[in-house]
Amino acid sequence: MTGSTAGPPDGQEAAAQLERTRALVDPELRAAVESLPASMRRIGLYHFGWQHADGTPAAGNAGKAIRPALVLAAAAALGGPAARAAAVRAAAAVELVHNFTLLHDDVMDRDTTRRHRPTAWTVFGDTDAILAGDALQALALRLLAEDPHPASARAAARLTTCVIELCEGQHADSELEQRAPDAVTLDEVLAMAEAKTGALLGCACALGALYAGADEADVAALDGFGRQAGLAFQLIDDVIGIWGDPRRTGKPVGADLAARKKSLPVVAALTSGAPGAADLAEMYARPYPREGGEDGEIARTALAVERAGGRDWAQAEAADRMARAVQELTRAIPDPEAAGGLLALAEFVTRRSS
Amino acid sequence: MTGSTAGPPDGQEAAAQLERTRALVDPELRAAVESLPASMRRIGLYHFGWQHADGTPAAGNAGKAIRPALVLAAAAALGGPAARAAAVRAAAAVELVHNFTLLHDDVMDRDTTRRHRPTAWTVFGDTDAILAGDALQALALRLLAEDPHPASARAAARLTTCVIELCEGQHADSELEQRAPDAVTLDEVLAMAEAKTGALLGCACALGALYAGADEADVAALDGFGRQAGLAFQLIDDVIGIWGDPRRTGKPVGADLAARKKSLPVVAALTSGAPGAADLAEMYARPYPREGGEDGEIARTALAVERAGGRDWAQAEAADRMARAVQELTRAIPDPEAAGGLLALAEFVTRRSS
Repeated sequence: MTGSTAGPPDGQEAAAQLERTRALVDPELRAAVESLPASMRRIGLYHFGWQHADGTPAAGNAGKAIRPALVLAAAAALGGPAARAAAVRAAAAVELVHNFTLLHDDVMDRDTTRRHRPTAWTVFGDTDAILAGDALQALALRLLAEDPHPASARAAARLTTCVIELCEGQHADSELEQRAPDAVTLDEVLAMAEAKTGALLGCACALGALYAGADEADVAALDGFGRQAGLAFQLIDDVIGIWGDPRRTGKPVGADLAARKKSLPVVAALTSGAPGAADLAEMYARPYPREGGEDGEIARTALAVERAGGRDWAQAEAADRMARAVQELTRAIPDPEAAGGLLALAEFVTRRSS
Repeated sequence: MTGSTAGPPDGQEAAAQLERTRALVDPELRAAVESLPASMRRIGLYHFGWQHADGTPAAGNAGKAIRPALVLAAAAALGGPAARAAAVRAAAAVELVHNFTLLHDDVMDRDTTRRHRPTAWTVFGDTDAILAGDALQALALRLLAEDPHPASARAAARLTTCVIELCEGQHADSELEQRAPDAVTLDEVLAMAEAKTGALLGCACALGALYAGADEADVAALDGFGRQAGLAFQLIDDVIGIWGDPRRTGKPVGADLAARKKSLPVVAALTSGAPGAADLAEMYARPYPREGGEDGEIARTALAVERAGGRDWAQAEAADRMARAVQELTRAIPDPEAAGGLLALAEFVTRRSS
């Protein structure tokens, strides 16, 4: 995690999968967004990076496509290339749901930067960003409703259930942020991260399994795999949010610490009982000093989280969650060859360099 | 419309239909809201009037159930009692979509009162009101995804398409409100009202037709009936918003005029070319005077709208839209006996006394 840019041995395979996914899913995704009426289309095209704010074409920067890649990899692992091809629309639906939540989360959290660009609400206002999110949710479920695949109704039922869990996760996130630093438990932030991040990665894998005609036990195992991998992903994402290179994260340095965000490593440090925990709690109880010595303050806070064991705990917990993910995956897909694509993706998202 | 409290001859039949609808649909609706996780459930139960803000039980005041009543009446008109019984879940889904849009619209419009109670965002904050709206949309589509009825996927496709139209309508509403009073055409507000109000009433009727196994032409005719009746409804609602009794509307007297809302009668007056139109435009270009002589100002503005023909136009246009609605209905259901339930509902919503 310290400045290395080379991926793990299978990093290249995962990168190739993500690229293939974009090639398969982007046309479906873009056609869906293009089908929206004028005002919603404009915001959607901007948010996905296909247009600049003034409506002129842009190169596109629609994110890493991890969730649709999981849908396609799960379908392929359990049903071969035909299942993968049949699941493209479901993969686009999952990506639309992910982006609907990003649009709304950015409004609620007042985040101003997303994928190195100004967030939609800063460009179009709160009302239009909320409406565009609403429209993307509807669009996601329209793709499934119009999909003649025999699994599409069960997929829609799972995806809507997942949206409700995402809402609960975002509620918990916002509620936990309002509490005092010493009034939050590690179990609470872990449950929040599972609902906010794990649920959709699990749902992506489950939808792929459904489109491969898998039975309920295998669908549940794939959901468990995605959930645990999702938690590992969130743990690493939080580590990168504190100790990562801002040129790669697309966020200002130390933004999470400056916002006093109760991320997983921070809460682990706060609740560690280690000698530095009390100092950290005191730092976190004060708002971030906006003027003077800012870099020093961020560095001191990061060091306090590290000294109280927050960084080590997050890395170890991520490894543990990955082990659980592999266990779930092996239950459904014992053949390592068949499971390879999903594993490569999980390793990719949890081992990406800072 | 002038103080009479007695309904039209068929008002009693419509009232009975609405009451039957509540009895059939409320248990389904309430079970769906109760199935939400804790935080979203609490906001949902409050919004529907089943709980007070502190979580204690309330008598319930979930609105007039016009949309679910249209679903059931359309199903019964085209498929008899069995189709009506089969369409209860679809009726609940439409009502959930309606309430998701109310939650979000109230946040965007900063409306503080809904059904004589404080709006959800004033009680729970913007974040939770937005999330509860998101969860209700997901819940609506989960009801359809889990419905084994052969029409449920086509119903979901229509309902999601309708949500997108509702978003466009709300966008147009907010965008038109930001323009100068003399920069809005009547066609623009009519198109906005069709998208924002007509679309969901049309969709409700279309879903009932789908659940009755109707062919595409009849489904389209029912959609047209609902749309035109919806426009008539909006026209009358706007009239009531200016000249209605606040004890019945649940809104403060003259709220629409005080907010300088570009409702249909106002835009008709502004664009009438009548001698009073210029005075009205001048009044509307100034913000409403918050202090002193408020009632007088509201009364003067209402009189200006009336003198420039806004009230008469809205009443005549509502009658015209109702005639078009009946025309659409007769195309699909020539038998007046079978069409009676739908007609009674349409008459009820467009003739309700002020």
